[in-house]
Amino acid sequence: MKIAIIGGTGDQGLGLALRFAKVGEEVIVGSRDLTKAENAVDQMKNLLDDDLPNVTAMTNQDATDNGDIIILTVPLQAQMVTLRSIKDHLNGEIFVDATSPLEGCLGGKPTRYVDLWEGSAAERSAEFLGDQANVVSAFCNISASSLTSINEDVECDCLVSGDDHEANLLVMKLAEKIEGVNAIECGALENARIVEKLTPLLINLNIRNKIKNAGLRITNLN
Amino acid sequence: MKIAIIGGTGDQGLGLALRFAKVGEEVIVGSRDLTKAENAVDQMKNLLDDDLPNVTAMTNQDATDNGDIIILTVPLQAQMVTLRSIKDHLNGEIFVDATSPLEGCLGGKPTRYVDLWEGSAAERSAEFLGDQANVVSAFCNISASSLTSINEDVECDCLVSGDDHEANLLVMKLAEKIEGVNAIECGALENARIVEKLTPLLINLNIRNKIKNAGLRITNLN
Repeated sequence: MKIAIIGGTGDQGLGLALRFAKVGEEVIVGSRDLTKAENAVDQMKNLLDDDLPNVTAMTNQDATDNGDIIILTVPLQAQMVTLRSIKDHLNGEIFVDATSPLEGCLGGKPTRYVDLWEGSAAERSAEFLGDQANVVSAFCNISASSLTSINEDVECDCLVSGDDHEANLLVMKLAEKIEGVNAIECGALENARIVEKLTPLLINLNIRNKIKNAGLRITNLN
Repeated sequence: MKIAIIGGTGDQGLGLALRFAKVGEEVIVGSRDLTKAENAVDQMKNLLDDDLPNVTAMTNQDATDNGDIIILTVPLQAQMVTLRSIKDHLNGEIFVDATSPLEGCLGGKPTRYVDLWEGSAAERSAEFLGDQANVVSAFCNISASSLTSINEDVECDCLVSGDDHEANLLVMKLAEKIEGVNAIECGALENARIVEKLTPLLINLNIRNKIKNAGLRITNLN
Protein backbone atom coordinates (compact mmCIF):
# COMPACT_ATOMS: atom_id res chain seq x y z
CA MET A 1 0.00 0.00 0.00
CA LYS A 2 1.52 3.29 -1.16
CA ILE A 3 1.05 6.15 1.30
CA ALA A 4 1.05 9.52 -0.46
CA ILE A 5 1.69 12.48 1.79
CA ILE A 6 0.43 15.71 0.27
CA GLY A 7 2.39 18.57 1.77
CA GLY A 8 5.01 16.06 2.77
CA THR A 9 7.75 18.63 3.09
CA GLY A 10 6.22 20.44 6.07
CA ASP A 11 7.12 19.35 9.62
CA GLN A 12 4.00 17.26 10.18
CA GLY A 13 4.12 15.59 6.75
CA LEU A 14 7.81 14.90 6.96
CA GLY A 15 7.33 13.45 10.44
CA LEU A 16 4.64 11.04 9.24
CA ALA A 17 6.74 10.12 6.19
CA LEU A 18 9.70 9.35 8.47
CA ARG A 19 7.64 7.18 10.79
CA PHE A 20 6.07 5.17 7.96
CA ALA A 21 9.37 4.86 6.06
CA LYS A 22 11.05 3.68 9.27
CA VAL A 23 8.75 0.65 9.47
CA GLY A 24 9.22 -0.19 5.79
CA GLU A 25 6.02 1.24 4.29
CA GLU A 26 6.01 2.56 0.74
CA VAL A 27 5.84 6.34 1.02
CA ILE A 28 5.41 9.07 -1.59
CA VAL A 29 6.45 12.51 -0.44
CA GLY A 30 4.40 15.05 -2.34
CA SER A 31 4.98 18.76 -2.74
CA ARG A 32 3.84 21.57 -5.01
CA ASP A 33 7.48 21.69 -6.09
CA LEU A 34 9.24 18.44 -7.06
CA THR A 35 12.63 19.77 -5.99
CA LYS A 36 11.31 20.43 -2.48
CA ALA A 37 9.95 16.89 -2.33
CA GLU A 38 13.33 15.53 -3.46
CA ASN A 39 15.13 17.59 -0.82
CA ALA A 40 12.74 16.26 1.83
CA VAL A 41 13.47 12.68 0.80
CA ASP A 42 17.21 13.39 1.01
CA GLN A 43 16.66 14.79 4.49
CA MET A 44 14.78 11.61 5.43
CA LYS A 45 17.62 9.43 4.14
CA ASN A 46 20.07 11.34 6.33
CA LEU A 47 17.85 11.21 9.41
CA LEU A 48 17.16 7.49 9.08
CA ASP A 49 20.65 6.70 7.74
CA ASP A 50 19.10 4.53 5.06
CA ASP A 51 18.78 4.63 1.26
CA LEU A 52 15.01 4.35 1.58
CA PRO A 53 14.29 2.56 -1.70
CA ASN A 54 10.59 2.58 -0.74
CA VAL A 55 10.38 6.38 -0.54
CA THR A 56 9.74 8.49 -3.64
CA ALA A 57 9.49 12.24 -4.25
CA MET A 58 6.69 13.48 -6.51
CA THR A 59 4.55 16.52 -7.19
CA ASN A 60 1.29 16.55 -5.20
CA GLN A 61 -0.61 15.59 -8.36
CA ASP A 62 1.62 12.61 -9.18
CA ALA A 63 1.61 11.58 -5.52
CA THR A 64 -2.20 11.58 -5.58
CA ASP A 65 -2.26 9.59 -8.81
CA ASN A 66 0.10 6.98 -7.40
CA GLY A 67 -1.00 6.75 -3.76
CA ASP A 68 -3.34 4.07 -2.47
CA ILE A 69 -4.07 6.19 0.57
CA ILE A 70 -3.62 9.96 0.63
CA ILE A 71 -2.68 12.00 3.70
CA LEU A 72 -3.09 15.79 3.64
CA THR A 73 -0.68 17.67 5.92
CA VAL A 74 -0.82 21.32 4.98
CA PRO A 75 -1.57 24.40 7.10
CA LEU A 76 -5.15 25.65 7.03
CA GLN A 77 -4.47 28.54 4.66
CA ALA A 78 -3.13 26.05 2.07
CA GLN A 79 -5.93 23.50 2.47
CA MET A 80 -8.38 24.65 -0.22
CA VAL A 81 -5.79 25.57 -2.82
CA THR A 82 -4.16 22.16 -2.36
CA LEU A 83 -7.50 20.34 -2.56
CA ARG A 84 -8.33 22.17 -5.80
CA SER A 85 -4.96 21.18 -7.24
CA ILE A 86 -5.43 17.45 -6.61
CA LYS A 87 -9.19 16.85 -6.74
CA ASP A 88 -9.16 15.58 -10.32
CA HIS A 89 -6.41 13.13 -9.42
CA LEU A 90 -8.49 11.37 -6.77
CA ASN A 91 -10.64 8.33 -7.46
CA GLY A 92 -12.45 7.59 -4.21
CA GLU A 93 -9.31 6.73 -2.23
CA ILE A 94 -9.13 6.98 1.55
CA PHE A 95 -8.11 10.57 2.16
CA VAL A 96 -6.76 11.39 5.60
CA ASP A 97 -7.08 15.04 6.61
CA ALA A 98 -4.64 16.13 9.32
CA THR A 99 -5.42 19.85 9.10
CA SER A 100 -5.91 21.82 12.31
CA PRO A 101 -8.00 25.00 12.12
CA LEU A 102 -5.53 27.18 14.01
CA GLU A 103 -6.16 30.91 14.24
CA GLY A 104 -2.40 31.21 13.82
CA CYS A 105 -2.86 30.24 10.18
CA LEU A 106 -4.83 33.46 9.71
CA GLY A 107 -2.40 35.80 11.44
CA GLY A 108 -3.81 35.13 14.92
CA LYS A 109 -2.74 32.86 17.76
CA PRO A 110 -1.85 29.17 17.32
CA THR A 111 -3.52 28.56 20.70
CA ARG A 112 -6.96 29.44 19.31
CA TYR A 113 -9.15 27.66 16.78
CA VAL A 114 -11.27 29.22 14.08
CA ASP A 115 -14.75 27.96 13.25
CA LEU A 116 -15.12 26.69 9.72
CA TRP A 117 -18.48 26.75 8.01
CA GLU A 118 -18.39 22.99 7.42
CA GLY A 119 -17.66 22.34 11.13
CA SER A 120 -14.09 21.08 10.77
CA ALA A 121 -11.24 21.04 8.31
CA ALA A 122 -11.88 17.37 7.59
CA GLU A 123 -15.56 18.02 6.81
CA ARG A 124 -14.41 20.87 4.56
CA SER A 125 -12.31 18.38 2.61
CA ALA A 126 -15.21 15.92 2.49
CA GLU A 127 -17.65 18.55 1.21
CA PHE A 128 -15.26 19.79 -1.45
CA LEU A 129 -14.01 16.39 -2.63
CA GLY A 130 -17.42 14.66 -2.65
CA ASP A 131 -17.27 11.20 -4.22
CA GLN A 132 -13.65 11.74 -5.24
CA ALA A 133 -12.45 10.75 -1.75
CA ASN A 134 -13.35 8.82 1.39
CA VAL A 135 -12.34 11.33 4.06
CA VAL A 136 -11.04 10.32 7.49
CA SER A 137 -9.77 12.75 10.14
CA ALA A 138 -6.58 11.65 11.91
CA PHE A 139 -3.09 12.70 13.06
CA CYS A 140 -3.91 16.37 13.73
CA ASN A 141 -3.09 16.12 17.46
CA ILE A 142 0.29 14.44 17.05
CA SER A 143 3.07 17.02 17.19
CA ALA A 144 5.60 17.26 14.39
CA SER A 145 8.30 17.30 17.04
CA SER A 146 7.20 13.92 18.41
CA LEU A 147 7.04 12.45 14.92
CA THR A 148 10.46 13.68 13.89
CA SER A 149 12.10 12.55 17.17
CA ILE A 150 12.50 9.31 15.36
CA ASN A 151 14.19 7.33 18.13
CA GLU A 152 11.51 8.05 20.71
CA ASP A 153 8.02 6.61 21.03
CA VAL A 154 5.19 9.02 20.24
CA GLU A 155 3.33 9.53 23.51
CA CYS A 156 0.03 10.50 21.94
CA ASP A 157 -3.13 8.69 20.94
CA CYS A 158 -4.41 9.11 17.39
CA LEU A 159 -8.11 10.03 17.43
CA VAL A 160 -9.72 8.81 14.21
CA SER A 161 -13.08 10.04 12.91
CA GLY A 162 -14.80 9.12 9.69
CA ASP A 163 -18.14 8.05 8.29
CA ASP A 164 -16.80 4.78 6.86
CA HIS A 165 -15.92 2.34 9.64
CA GLU A 166 -13.74 0.17 7.38
CA ALA A 167 -11.75 3.22 6.28
CA ASN A 168 -11.34 4.24 9.92
CA LEU A 169 -10.00 0.79 10.74
CA LEU A 170 -7.46 0.96 7.94
CA VAL A 171 -6.25 4.39 9.07
CA MET A 172 -6.08 3.15 12.67
CA LYS A 173 -3.94 0.22 11.59
CA LEU A 174 -1.65 2.65 9.78
CA ALA A 175 -1.50 5.01 12.79
CA GLU A 176 -0.49 2.17 15.08
CA LYS A 177 2.56 1.51 12.90
CA ILE A 178 3.95 4.64 14.57
CA GLU A 179 5.70 3.44 17.71
CA GLY A 180 3.84 4.51 20.85
CA VAL A 181 0.61 5.51 19.16
CA ASN A 182 -2.74 3.98 20.11
CA ALA A 183 -5.47 4.65 17.57
CA ILE A 184 -8.95 5.35 18.93
CA GLU A 185 -12.05 5.44 16.78
CA CYS A 186 -14.23 8.43 17.64
CA GLY A 187 -17.11 7.72 15.27
CA ALA A 188 -18.42 9.85 12.42
CA LEU A 189 -16.40 12.52 10.63
CA GLU A 190 -18.31 15.26 12.46
CA ASN A 191 -16.30 14.40 15.59
CA ALA A 192 -13.31 16.02 13.90
CA ARG A 193 -14.95 19.25 15.14
CA ILE A 194 -13.79 18.36 18.63
CA VAL A 195 -10.57 16.51 17.81
CA GLU A 196 -9.16 19.28 15.60
CA LYS A 197 -9.85 21.86 18.34
CA LEU A 198 -7.61 19.93 20.71
CA THR A 199 -4.54 20.88 18.69
CA PRO A 200 -4.49 24.56 19.75
CA LEU A 201 -4.86 23.42 23.39
CA LEU A 202 -1.81 21.16 23.01
CA ILE A 203 0.11 24.03 21.37
CA ASN A 204 -0.91 26.21 24.31
CA LEU A 205 0.44 23.61 26.73
CA ASN A 206 3.64 23.42 24.68
CA ILE A 207 4.15 27.17 24.96
CA ARG A 208 3.23 27.29 28.67
CA ASN A 209 5.58 24.41 29.51
CA LYS A 210 8.38 25.27 27.06
CA ILE A 211 8.11 21.91 25.31
CA LYS A 212 7.18 20.86 21.77
CA ASN A 213 5.50 17.53 22.17
CA ALA A 214 2.48 17.72 24.48
CA GLY A 215 0.15 14.89 23.57
CA LEU A 216 -2.91 13.20 24.96
CA ARG A 217 -3.99 9.77 26.03
CA ILE A 218 -7.55 8.58 26.53
CA THR A 219 -7.89 6.54 29.73
CA ASN A 220 -10.10 3.66 30.90
CA LEU A 221 -11.01 2.40 27.42
CA ASN A 222 -10.18 -1.19 28.33
CA MET B 1 -11.72 26.32 53.52
CA LYS B 2 -15.40 25.52 52.99
CA ILE B 3 -16.17 24.11 49.55
CA ALA B 4 -19.75 24.85 48.50
CA ILE B 5 -21.06 22.67 45.70
CA ILE B 6 -24.00 24.28 43.93
CA GLY B 7 -26.08 21.55 42.37
CA GLY B 8 -24.41 19.11 44.72
CA THR B 9 -27.13 16.52 44.40
CA GLY B 10 -26.45 15.71 40.74
CA ASP B 11 -24.02 12.93 39.84
CA GLN B 12 -21.08 15.23 39.15
CA GLY B 13 -21.63 17.41 42.20
CA LEU B 14 -22.17 14.44 44.48
CA GLY B 15 -19.03 12.83 43.09
CA LEU B 16 -16.92 15.91 43.84
CA ALA B 17 -18.50 16.24 47.29
CA LEU B 18 -17.64 12.60 48.03
CA ARG B 19 -14.04 13.00 46.91
CA PHE B 20 -13.48 16.16 48.96
CA ALA B 21 -15.29 14.77 52.02
CA LYS B 22 -13.21 11.60 51.77
CA VAL B 23 -9.99 13.57 52.28
CA GLY B 24 -11.42 15.56 55.19
CA GLU B 25 -12.33 18.84 53.47
CA GLU B 26 -15.25 20.90 54.73
CA VAL B 27 -18.00 20.50 52.16
CA ILE B 28 -21.38 22.17 51.76
CA VAL B 29 -23.81 20.30 49.53
CA GLY B 30 -26.15 22.84 47.97
CA SER B 31 -29.45 22.25 46.24
CA ARG B 32 -32.50 24.28 45.23
CA ASP B 33 -34.34 22.08 47.73
CA LEU B 34 -32.88 21.64 51.23
CA THR B 35 -34.45 18.18 51.60
CA LYS B 36 -32.66 16.98 48.47
CA ALA B 37 -29.37 18.29 49.82
CA GLU B 38 -29.98 16.49 53.10
CA ASN B 39 -30.77 13.27 51.28
CA ALA B 40 -27.56 13.62 49.27
CA VAL B 41 -25.53 14.05 52.45
CA ASP B 42 -27.19 10.92 53.91
CA GLN B 43 -26.24 9.07 50.72
CA MET B 44 -22.65 10.27 51.11
CA LYS B 45 -22.55 9.05 54.73
CA ASN B 46 -23.66 5.62 53.59
CA LEU B 47 -21.22 5.46 50.69
CA LEU B 48 -18.25 6.57 52.79
CA ASP B 49 -19.47 4.73 55.94
CA ASP B 50 -18.69 7.81 57.98
CA ASP B 51 -20.71 10.37 59.97
CA LEU B 52 -19.09 13.17 57.94
CA PRO B 53 -19.22 15.94 60.56
CA ASN B 54 -17.53 18.23 58.01
CA VAL B 55 -20.32 17.90 55.46
CA THR B 56 -23.43 20.11 55.61
CA ALA B 57 -26.60 20.31 53.53
CA MET B 58 -27.88 23.77 52.58
CA THR B 59 -29.94 25.57 49.97
CA ASN B 60 -27.86 26.88 47.06
CA GLN B 61 -28.18 30.41 48.46
CA ASP B 62 -27.02 29.46 51.96
CA ALA B 63 -24.24 27.33 50.48
CA THR B 64 -23.05 30.34 48.46
CA ASP B 65 -23.20 32.57 51.55
CA ASN B 66 -21.16 30.10 53.58
CA GLY B 67 -18.68 28.76 51.03
CA ASP B 68 -15.14 30.06 50.67
CA ILE B 69 -14.95 28.55 47.21
CA ILE B 70 -18.01 27.80 45.10
CA ILE B 71 -18.26 24.97 42.55
CA LEU B 72 -21.13 24.95 40.05
CA THR B 73 -22.16 21.48 38.86
CA VAL B 74 -25.48 21.81 37.08
CA PRO B 75 -26.50 20.80 33.56
CA LEU B 76 -26.38 23.53 30.92
CA GLN B 77 -30.12 24.16 30.91
CA ALA B 78 -29.98 24.94 34.64
CA GLN B 79 -26.87 27.14 34.48
CA MET B 80 -28.41 30.59 34.02
CA VAL B 81 -31.36 30.07 36.35
CA THR B 82 -28.96 28.86 39.04
CA LEU B 83 -26.57 31.76 38.49
CA ARG B 84 -29.47 34.22 38.81
CA SER B 85 -30.56 32.58 42.05
CA ILE B 86 -27.14 32.92 43.73
CA LYS B 87 -25.54 36.01 42.17
CA ASP B 88 -26.48 38.32 45.05
CA HIS B 89 -24.97 35.84 47.50
CA LEU B 90 -21.50 36.02 45.93
CA ASN B 91 -18.78 38.43 47.04
CA GLY B 92 -15.89 37.91 44.64
CA GLU B 93 -15.18 34.32 45.72
CA ILE B 94 -13.42 31.84 43.46
CA PHE B 95 -16.24 30.31 41.45
CA VAL B 96 -15.46 27.05 39.65
CA ASP B 97 -17.67 26.33 36.67
CA ALA B 98 -17.86 22.65 35.71
CA THR B 99 -20.64 23.02 33.15
CA SER B 100 -20.32 21.24 29.80
CA PRO B 101 -22.23 22.69 26.84
CA LEU B 102 -23.73 19.37 25.73
CA GLU B 103 -26.32 19.36 22.96
CA GLY B 104 -27.98 16.63 25.02
CA CYS B 105 -29.02 19.32 27.51
CA LEU B 106 -31.16 20.84 24.74
CA GLY B 107 -32.85 17.65 23.58
CA GLY B 108 -30.02 16.69 21.23
CA LYS B 109 -27.07 14.33 21.54
CA PRO B 110 -24.71 14.27 24.54
CA THR B 111 -21.89 13.56 22.07
CA ARG B 112 -22.22 17.02 20.50
CA TYR B 113 -21.48 20.46 21.89
CA VAL B 114 -23.46 23.63 21.37
CA ASP B 115 -21.79 26.98 20.76
CA LEU B 116 -22.55 29.56 23.40
CA TRP B 117 -22.43 33.25 22.54
CA GLU B 118 -19.83 33.89 25.27
CA GLY B 119 -17.59 31.10 23.89
CA SER B 120 -17.92 28.66 26.79
CA ALA B 121 -20.13 27.95 29.77
CA ALA B 122 -17.44 29.26 32.09
CA GLU B 123 -17.19 32.55 30.19
CA ARG B 124 -20.98 32.76 30.34
CA SER B 125 -20.74 32.55 34.14
CA ALA B 126 -17.95 35.14 34.16
CA GLU B 127 -19.90 37.58 31.99
CA PHE B 128 -23.07 37.22 34.05
CA LEU B 129 -21.43 37.29 37.48
CA GLY B 130 -18.99 40.14 36.74
CA ASP B 131 -17.19 41.33 39.87
CA GLN B 132 -19.32 39.08 42.06
CA ALA B 133 -17.07 36.09 41.28
CA ASN B 134 -13.59 35.07 40.15
CA VAL B 135 -14.46 32.37 37.62
CA VAL B 136 -12.24 29.35 36.94
CA SER B 137 -13.14 26.49 34.58
CA ALA B 138 -12.37 23.01 35.94
CA PHE B 139 -13.68 19.49 36.49
CA CYS B 140 -15.94 19.35 33.41
CA ASN B 141 -14.02 16.42 31.83
CA ILE B 142 -14.01 14.19 34.91
CA SER B 143 -16.83 11.68 34.72
CA ALA B 144 -19.32 11.40 37.54
CA SER B 145 -18.82 7.64 37.41
CA SER B 146 -15.09 8.00 38.11
CA LEU B 147 -15.75 10.41 40.97
CA THR B 148 -18.38 8.23 42.64
CA SER B 149 -16.26 5.05 42.29
CA ILE B 150 -14.81 6.18 45.56
CA ASN B 151 -12.34 3.34 46.07
CA GLU B 152 -10.66 3.79 42.68
CA ASP B 153 -8.25 6.47 41.53
CA VAL B 154 -9.64 8.92 39.00
CA GLU B 155 -7.69 8.32 35.79
CA CYS B 156 -8.24 11.78 34.33
CA ASP B 157 -6.34 15.05 34.36
CA CYS B 158 -8.14 18.20 35.46
CA LEU B 159 -7.66 20.97 32.90
CA VAL B 160 -7.89 24.34 34.66
CA SER B 161 -8.47 27.64 32.86
CA GLY B 162 -8.93 31.06 34.40
CA ASP B 163 -7.76 34.64 34.08
CA ASP B 164 -6.40 34.79 37.64
CA HIS B 165 -3.29 32.63 37.99
CA GLU B 166 -3.50 32.53 41.80
CA ALA B 167 -7.10 31.35 41.64
CA ASN B 168 -6.11 28.70 39.11
CA LEU B 169 -3.40 27.48 41.48
CA LEU B 170 -5.84 27.19 44.36
CA VAL B 171 -8.30 25.21 42.23
CA MET B 172 -5.47 22.98 40.98
CA LYS B 173 -4.45 22.25 44.58
CA LEU B 174 -8.04 21.35 45.34
CA ALA B 175 -8.33 19.14 42.23
CA GLU B 176 -5.22 17.22 43.18
CA LYS B 177 -6.83 16.23 46.48
CA ILE B 178 -8.83 13.81 44.31
CA GLU B 179 -6.79 10.63 44.16
CA GLY B 180 -5.34 10.05 40.68
CA VAL B 181 -5.99 13.54 39.34
CA ASN B 182 -3.22 15.72 37.92
CA ALA B 183 -4.21 19.35 37.54
CA ILE B 184 -2.93 21.17 34.47
CA GLU B 185 -3.15 24.91 34.01
CA CYS B 186 -4.33 25.80 30.50
CA GLY B 187 -4.11 29.58 30.79
CA ALA B 188 -6.87 32.15 30.43
CA LEU B 189 -10.57 31.41 30.91
CA GLU B 190 -11.12 31.50 27.12
CA ASN B 191 -9.43 28.09 26.91
CA ALA B 192 -12.55 26.62 28.50
CA ARG B 193 -13.90 26.82 24.91
CA ILE B 194 -11.72 23.86 24.06
CA VAL B 195 -11.73 22.04 27.39
CA GLU B 196 -15.53 22.00 27.72
CA LYS B 197 -15.87 20.62 24.19
CA LEU B 198 -13.82 17.58 25.19
CA THR B 199 -16.62 16.33 27.41
CA PRO B 200 -18.95 15.29 24.56
CA LEU B 201 -16.00 13.44 22.96
CA LEU B 202 -15.41 11.52 26.18
CA ILE B 203 -19.14 10.74 26.40
CA ASN B 204 -18.96 9.52 22.80
CA LEU B 205 -16.06 7.22 23.72
CA ASN B 206 -18.05 6.00 26.74
CA ILE B 207 -20.99 5.07 24.54
CA ARG B 208 -18.82 3.48 21.84
CA ASN B 209 -16.87 1.41 24.36
CA LYS B 210 -19.76 0.65 26.74
CA ILE B 211 -17.97 2.27 29.68
CA LYS B 212 -18.74 5.27 31.88
CA ASN B 213 -15.37 6.67 32.80
CA ALA B 214 -13.32 7.59 29.73
CA GLY B 215 -10.85 10.24 30.76
CA LEU B 216 -7.79 11.95 29.37
CA ARG B 217 -4.18 12.48 30.28
CA ILE B 218 -1.86 15.07 28.80
CA THR B 219 1.55 13.59 28.02
CA ASN B 220 5.15 14.86 27.93
CA LEU B 221 4.57 17.85 30.24
CA ASN B 222 7.59 16.98 32.37
